[in-house]
Amino acid sequence: MMQDDALRASSYVDASRLLDSIETLAHFGAGEDGGVDRPALSPTDIHARRHLIERAITLGCTVRTDACANLFFRRAGLEALPPVMTGSHVDTQPTGGKLDGCYGVLAGFECLAALNDAGIQTRRPLEVAAWTNEEGTRFQPGAMGSSAFVDPGLLEHYYPAKDGDGITLAAALATHCEAFPTLETRAVEKAAHAFIELHIEQGPLLELANIPLGVVKGIQGVRWYAVRCKGVAAHAGTTPMHARHDAMTLAVRIRAEIAALAHQLGGDDTRITFGRWTVLPNSINTIASEVTFSIDFRHPDPAVLGAFDRKLLDCTARNAVTSEALFIHPPVDFAPAVIQRVADACHALGVPSLSITSGAFHDAMYLAKHCPSAMLFVPSRGGISHNPLEATDDDHLVLGARALAHCLVNLCNEAP
Amino acid sequence: MMQDDALRASSYVDASRLLDSIETLAHFGAGEDGGVDRPALSPTDIHARRHLIERAITLGCTVRTDACANLFFRRAGLEALPPVMTGSHVDTQPTGGKLDGCYGVLAGFECLAALNDAGIQTRRPLEVAAWTNEEGTRFQPGAMGSSAFVDPGLLEHYYPAKDGDGITLAAALATHCEAFPTLETRAVEKAAHAFIELHIEQGPLLELANIPLGVVKGIQGVRWYAVRCKGVAAHAGTTPMHARHDAMTLAVRIRAEIAALAHQLGGDDTRITFGRWTVLPNSINTIASEVTFSIDFRHPDPAVLGAFDRKLLDCTARNAVTSEALFIHPPVDFAPAVIQRVADACHALGVPSLSITSGAFHDAMYLAKHCPSAMLFVPSRGGISHNPLEATDDDHLVLGARALAHCLVNLCNEAP
Repeated sequence: MMQDDALRASSYVDASRLLDSIETLAHFGAGEDGGVDRPALSPTDIHARRHLIERAITLGCTVRTDACANLFFRRAGLEALPPVMTGSHVDTQPTGGKLDGCYGVLAGFECLAALNDAGIQTRRPLEVAAWTNEEGTRFQPGAMGSSAFVDPGLLEHYYPAKDGDGITLAAALATHCEAFPTLETRAVEKAAHAFIELHIEQGPLLELANIPLGVVKGIQGVRWYAVRCKGVAAHAGTTPMHARHDAMTLAVRIRAEIAALAHQLGGDDTRITFGRWTVLPNSINTIASEVTFSIDFRHPDPAVLGAFDRKLLDCTARNAVTSEALFIHPPVDFAPAVIQRVADACHALGVPSLSITSGAFHDAMYLAKHCPSAMLFVPSRGGISHNPLEATDDDHLVLGARALAHCLVNLCNEAP
Repeated sequence: MMQDDALRASSYVDASRLLDSIETLAHFGAGEDGGVDRPALSPTDIHARRHLIERAITLGCTVRTDACANLFFRRAGLEALPPVMTGSHVDTQPTGGKLDGCYGVLAGFECLAALNDAGIQTRRPLEVAAWTNEEGTRFQPGAMGSSAFVDPGLLEHYYPAKDGDGITLAAALATHCEAFPTLETRAVEKAAHAFIELHIEQGPLLELANIPLGVVKGIQGVRWYAVRCKGVAAHAGTTPMHARHDAMTLAVRIRAEIAALAHQLGGDDTRITFGRWTVLPNSINTIASEVTFSIDFRHPDPAVLGAFDRKLLDCTARNAVTSEALFIHPPVDFAPAVIQRVADACHALGVPSLSITSGAFHDAMYLAKHCPSAMLFVPSRGGISHNPLEATDDDHLVLGARALAHCLVNLCNEAP
């Protein structure tokens, strides 16, 4: 009986094996502070990928790649139907932790192993994906792999992207090809049946609510801008204050204006961050000639996001500075049928769950355009992520994988 | 009559020869933008020094060096008395102009030539110095040559300083020795009789006042600090505003506090600059975990500088951030007798002058500890310096050299 298979798969999730696999993957790019630094397609990332490929072969999966170096680990189904997909990414932030992305991929692997151990066969194939360059740290924009999977036409725009050393994405992809010359290419197929991404919350809401699983109904929309403020370089000792055009003085004033308008428009759901700053010439005794800072504004309401765009333009025009949109994404609503499968899994395991909107981007943001998608969250201790201290209780990690196994099996056994 | 000699020397200053010499020296390290990039003791600096040495020999001077590769070009006096010194430096900022430092050295050479042409003999020797590494761009700290001349014990602390390529000052000094193997070493002598440094203002005050010469009464004191603000790295999308510890939010608040206290303590004479910023991890979608910014605070009043130190400590303690003193120098008061000679020269030439405090550091800041010293400024167009656009009207350049010749001759003829 199908329902039995879903519960049985859950019960075959092996806590030690899952937790060990997380520690093992974290060795690739491990820092002394317990964190991980594994830039997309870097040597450490390629080592990590080799480890995953070898494990997938041991699990009896076929392993394939595509033009953006996404990896696909497929467990065969009984019928020639579109697969159910799960997975996430294994690249990290420069000061990242062990779980962001990796947990979703490794929980996918744990489901493959659990199905093998339980001797369960599913109607549809089950495919775990590791999407390339989700973090967007080495190459901008992020989520290159998943977005190019959904819209292959994007790839030609991504190829010229350069990392901090001037290496293009195209060159990094060529290096990946050379590292895995025998890897089969995944042919373009009919859309997947469904996609579920299991991820750490990377925020404090589940912990604050003391609820171990989050059923993710969507992802808030985002605006990324760069604001460039020009001044005039001059000597810090000789230039009277009234004769200065200090780009940093201008920049911090505009930062305050933008923060105020974001809060005014967005209320309690506002998330506004000014995380990246470039100061020229960045010298102790020279007044700054140019300051560029980033805006990351997120909100679940498209009307608020639109109003922010307009007010920002007013603000930059009024202050005679320039802004450049770096990335814009509308809020995403996940598929009700898949959300329901996730909620059912929590229910079947007897675990309370919280309906939640994701504050972070995920590969599922793009997969939602490709096939019915949803996400499942486990709590992040202290809400901390993008940080070596990123952590989730072992029990929650295991529970997330059990719930994932449950809904994947049910989705895999759905009729065409 | 001595006064006549001073005026006669002024009148022998040759405008074309002075201006040509500035253009000629600017060839060593010339950029396409009209600027000069001549790091201290670099191959271009050594070429420039060779050019100066050859010219000094042609002018009949003895040429000597010392352990910090300062160059001394001496025109003999009639009596065995301590010399009167002038000069400045010929190293430049990476994006420097033709005048900062070079003008003072070349105007010194022009005085040597004018004295020769006028057939004037002075009681005391006249010595033009080119001080090593004033800018502090290749090796830190700046003004190494002049400070080590005044306090030779500093040199052993300077030797290990490394440039961006890892070359030590000691190695660069050895290269200089090899380039000029026959150069005589200047023996340690009694202190000089006086030092006058002619320099471009590098600020807007003379231009704003429409006055061609500045009689510099001193150099304002300076405090350089680095303030480090710690936060907690967290995800820009998932972390509610109230749960954040954003190091940049903290840093801009503290910057505003420090700016306010600087103005409150220092009034109109305040110069406060926050020029250098380091943001970690400097990522669009991560809340900053650490922001370090520099303070450059200058003021002519030592009481204000001391009060600033104390209030800054209060501020950093109150905000639980740390500050580190990077460089501290008290205000320098130049010698009234030498200031008077400079003012007399302006008066004798019938040129209006402004009594002014230098906002920038100069080699004279250190020479003032060695012997009675003062400075003479000419205007900087638009107040611009440390920039290829650095410029001074030809008339002003010539006037500055004439005034320098006048006061040097009078000082050279002073009784022991």
